[in-house]
Formats: sequence, structure tokens, C-alpha cells
Amino acid sequence: MRIAILAHEKFPHDAKTAVGVLRYGDQDVAAVLDREHAGSRVADHLPDVQDAPVVAGIEDVPDEIDRLIIGIAPIGGGLDDSWRPDINGAIERGTDVVAGLHYFLSEDEELSRLADEYGVELWDVRKPPADLGVADGTARDLDAEIVLTVGTDCSTGKMTTTWSLLEAARERGWDAAAVPTGQTGVMVEGSGIVVDRTISDFTAGAVERMVEERADHDYLFVEGQGSITHPAYSGVTLSILHGSMPDALVLCHEAGREQIRKYESFPIPHPAEYVDLYESLAAPLHETDVVAGSLNTRFVEDDAEAREAVADYGAAIDAPATDPVRFDADEVLDAL
Amino acid sequence: MRIAILAHEKFPHDAKTAVGVLRYGDQDVAAVLDREHAGSRVADHLPDVQDAPVVAGIEDVPDEIDRLIIGIAPIGGGLDDSWRPDINGAIERGTDVVAGLHYFLSEDEELSRLADEYGVELWDVRKPPADLGVADGTARDLDAEIVLTVGTDCSTGKMTTTWSLLEAARERGWDAAAVPTGQTGVMVEGSGIVVDRTISDFTAGAVERMVEERADHDYLFVEGQGSITHPAYSGVTLSILHGSMPDALVLCHEAGREQIRKYESFPIPHPAEYVDLYESLAAPLHETDVVAGSLNTRFVEDDAEAREAVADYGAAIDAPATDPVRFDADEVLDAL
Repeated sequence: MRIAILAHEKFPHDAKTAVGVLRYGDQDVAAVLDREHAGSRVADHLPDVQDAPVVAGIEDVPDEIDRLIIGIAPIGGGLDDSWRPDINGAIERGTDVVAGLHYFLSEDEELSRLADEYGVELWDVRKPPADLGVADGTARDLDAEIVLTVGTDCSTGKMTTTWSLLEAARERGWDAAAVPTGQTGVMVEGSGIVVDRTISDFTAGAVERMVEERADHDYLFVEGQGSITHPAYSGVTLSILHGSMPDALVLCHEAGREQIRKYESFPIPHPAEYVDLYESLAAPLHETDVVAGSLNTRFVEDDAEAREAVADYGAAIDAPATDPVRFDADEVLDAL
Repeated sequence: MRIAILAHEKFPHDAKTAVGVLRYGDQDVAAVLDREHAGSRVADHLPDVQDAPVVAGIEDVPDEIDRLIIGIAPIGGGLDDSWRPDINGAIERGTDVVAGLHYFLSEDEELSRLADEYGVELWDVRKPPADLGVADGTARDLDAEIVLTVGTDCSTGKMTTTWSLLEAARERGWDAAAVPTGQTGVMVEGSGIVVDRTISDFTAGAVERMVEERADHDYLFVEGQGSITHPAYSGVTLSILHGSMPDALVLCHEAGREQIRKYESFPIPHPAEYVDLYESLAAPLHETDVVAGSLNTRFVEDDAEAREAVADYGAAIDAPATDPVRFDADEVLDAL
């Protein structure tokens, strides 16, 4: 699949989805649209992801593309009217458009009329499928080895860890796939359900469905969300744990984080307590262990210090640990 | 508030919502609509709830009423066309209509047109408010004593226990209110949010909002849902625990139940394990204890046997226990 990614005025630092797709996606990126950086190349900004030209608008995308992905989200999640010429242009070229905005493209009168006219799909990834149902509790019966990333908080590296593991597993020749549960993950994979937008009765069912659809692989890396002690999102976290019935857990933590992000009056318990909580919640349905830890050391300056933090973290949870971004994912894969 | 309850051909045994409203609701019931039992009285069928005439249709309801409640749900949750004359008649009398169907009255063309014409509200309780948001984690700061019913499974008596406690607390002169989270509970109270229909990111937020709206009472009895080990609904259960931040838990179990209902390949762990799970999940946000147990003994024949089962259950969870329907709720209230 060939795609273009819209990231006007935000590439690369405020374009999390665009960068995620470039870094981890299987899709071929024909161009990034950013009118502020037109004329440069992705490699000028990010040396370690797939390269592509940065262009000013859809008319400058050099090749045929299958999809235009909206790779940024303004505060509030609205549709920026300055993007319309690019979206319209994509539709008129016969290109599907994928967005993760609060504002649904498929409910925009102008865009949906145009999409009908040109026979293209407008896929709002935050809009769940209409036919979801409750979980059957069947994911534990699958042959695939299911590995779920869980966390001590939001934004501790569950997404990054999931795709780092996938990449490293494939490099070893393992037959592996990712099960995305968030908006960037779904765009990286080009399919999937943003589970925190589903009706809560159906959240575990949505995860179960995705796991079952990918069950012909030997390894499935399931992207976790939130944390089991998060005041707002713990329900989503538990629905993913019970919907996917993992065979192994990887506990993600950020070095130095002591309070729940944006909920600073809530301290984060000792990581070993999370091991107990996740394992004892999984056990009545399908026994599983935290087999490894993933420590996000982005705020630790030098590598020696980061290695020490990783070693401390491994000791704290009594399991092998690494920072898969700074170092590599071998400790985790070896533990599987 | 004066209401009528529609329960055609289902009253009383297949009309859970109708009976719940009669048993626990504050509303004055002017009549029950059941064309099969017209001419009888509620007391002929159920001696221990508020009495009212059973009539054939809306035109036979003797008094002015504020609301018509649809107190039954056919398999599939659709709208039975044979109810339309009663619903239309209610609207034409200026009466609001409340329903918990999958099919939304407010999206029915005929009914919504008629409701507009007569200026009445069609309230679909399964349709969540549009302005929900994520939880702030603030319910722990409230002065009210918050008591949450939790369970070892679905259908163990959490709803019944919640309203039994409310009734008994009021009899003692306590200033208490219920926080309903399910469809029957919302109809009993005449307000509230059916939380398992909310977007999963907002489920804890919906519970938090309801708790805060009722925080001027001394005691709040929060209706729990599902179970922390339920393959499909555990996420909802945890969202209620973390959204309401209870000061005390009452663990509901059914005597003799050994497997998860409708998921029989999953055994129910020992009740003491649930005490640990619920308490250790609550502790990082707001410490709480299982202060009492509520055992549903509906399938235990004689009272002596039921008393023994209750005593065994209390010993198993190391807390006072009762069956609040068969016996009374004093053990639980004394424990608070």
C-alpha cells in the first residue's frame, strides 16, 4: 500500500501519528505534506525512519497513492479548513482518506458527497464498527503466543514497545503481527479498532475480535492502553487484559515518573505492585506472568545512567528489562 | 412524581424493570398497563410492593401522570408495535416517556414528531448524555460515605442489595441516596446514566459525575455492575470502582454459584480472592475495605439452610454477611 501523510506545519515534532507511521508502518510513504517544510526530505528531520519527500500539497505527491492519512490532530480534534484542498484533491484522485479526528470526515457534508462521487472511502478510525458485541472469553484458546504491553501509567511507552518488539521479532524471522488498540497504532497497521472509543460493554469484545482476526500468526503483540491504577482509563486497561487473554506481559514504565500524569495527586505505586495486580487480575481467566520490563529512559541523559536505571527496574520487578528504543528489544524477546 | 408503567403480557414475572420501580422507586405509580391482567391489582400479584390498579391501556390510567415508563424489554430490545397506541396516547396527554430499549424512541420518526408537537420528552436511558468526559479522580474528596456493591459475577444481587441498603438506611433516619448505573436502577431513581453504554474512556467519568451530583447526602449507595473477573464486563466494573472511589465495599455473591454465568468454562474463584482483588485495585487511588457480604440465597430452599450459607459466606470473606432480601440489611448497615 502506498500512502501520503498530511502533517502541515507540525512535522516532525508535533506529528506523533505521522512519525509513528513512518517509523513502524508497513506502508510505502510517497510523500509527507507540510507546506512549511516543502522541499526538504523526511531524512533531513528524522534520520532513522523511512525517507520520503516533504511537499506543499496533494498536487505535488509524485506517485499514485492508495491512502491519504491525516497525521496530525489540532487541539480539540477539529478539521482545519486549510486542509480541505488537500483532502478534496486526494478524493478527486481516487484516494481513500484516513483520519483520527474527533470531527468525523464521513459526517462532513462536502467530503462525504465528494467521496460518494469518486467512490472512495473516508475512514474515521475513532468511529468504532457498528457491529461490535460482548467478548466470548475465547482468546485464551488460540495457538498464537499473545504478548500484551501493560503500564504503570499512560505515556510510558506501550505503543513504542509493542512495535519495537514486532520489528525485532520479524528481524529474527518470527511470524509476528501487532494488535493495535489506539489511534496511531491503527493508522500504523492500516486496520484495527480504537478501543477507548467503543461502548464499554463491548471493549473487551473489540480486542478479542482483533486478536482472533490475527490468530494465524505465531506471535501477537497487543498494544496496551492506560494503566490498571489510572483514575480515568483503568477500565479500558482491564478490558484489553481480559479481551486478549495474553500468555505474557511486558510492563512499561518511565524512569523517574512518580505521579500519574495529569493526575499528580495520585502517586504511582512501586512497579512490583503492578506485577502483582496485573498477574492476579489475569489469573482467574488465563494465567500469565510479567516476563520482562520496558523502561522509557527518554529523560535520562547519558547511556550509562540509563543502563543503571534499566538494571534497577529489572531488579524491582524481578524480570529482564531494557529500553527498546535506546538499546534493543533482545532481553524481552529472549524472555518469551 | 406520578408515573404509569407499561408491562403488557409480562407482569409481574418477566417485567424486571416494572417490578424494580414498584419495589424501590420513589415515584407514585398510578397504574400498571398489562392488557392480559387488566382489572386486577398489583397487590394480587406482588404483596410486598406499592399497590396500583392494572389497566388495559393508557386511556384507563385514572390520574394525571408525569411519565410513562416502558417496564419490559422484548428479546432483541426492539419496540413492539402493539405498544404504539399507549405511547402515542401518553404523548398526547402531555406525558414524558422513558424507555430502556435498544431501539431509541427519540430516533423514531412518528414518536419524535409527536413528542415535538406536544412538547414532551422521550428519554432513552440507554443513550448516554452527549457531554460526558474523562474522570478527574475527585470522588475521593467528597464528604459523603460512599458504599459500592461489587460482585463475584453478574446477577448476584448488586442492584437488589443497593436498594435494600438504601431503604434500610432511610428507615434508620440516615440521609442516603442511590447512585444507579444500570437501566432498571436509572428508571427506579428517575435519573442517572446507564454506564455500560458509555464510551469506555468516559465510563469512570460518568460514575464520578453521578456521585458528585448526589454528594450532599451523608450516605451514597452506588450500584455496581459485572465483576472484576468477568471476561466481557470487567472493564465496566473497574471503571465504577475507580470512578466512585468508595469508602466501603459490599461483596455480593450467589449461594452455590461456581461458574461465571453464561461463561461456564470460567470457574468463580473463592470469595476471599475477590476481597483481595477489589481492595488491592482500589488502594492505590483510595483505600477501602470489603466491610460486609450480601449473599443471594434465592435457590436455597429453607431458611435454616440459608442462614447457614450466610454464616459460611461471612466466614469465607471474614466480614459480617446477610441476605438482605430474605432476612434484613442490618448486618451491613451496622458494619458501615
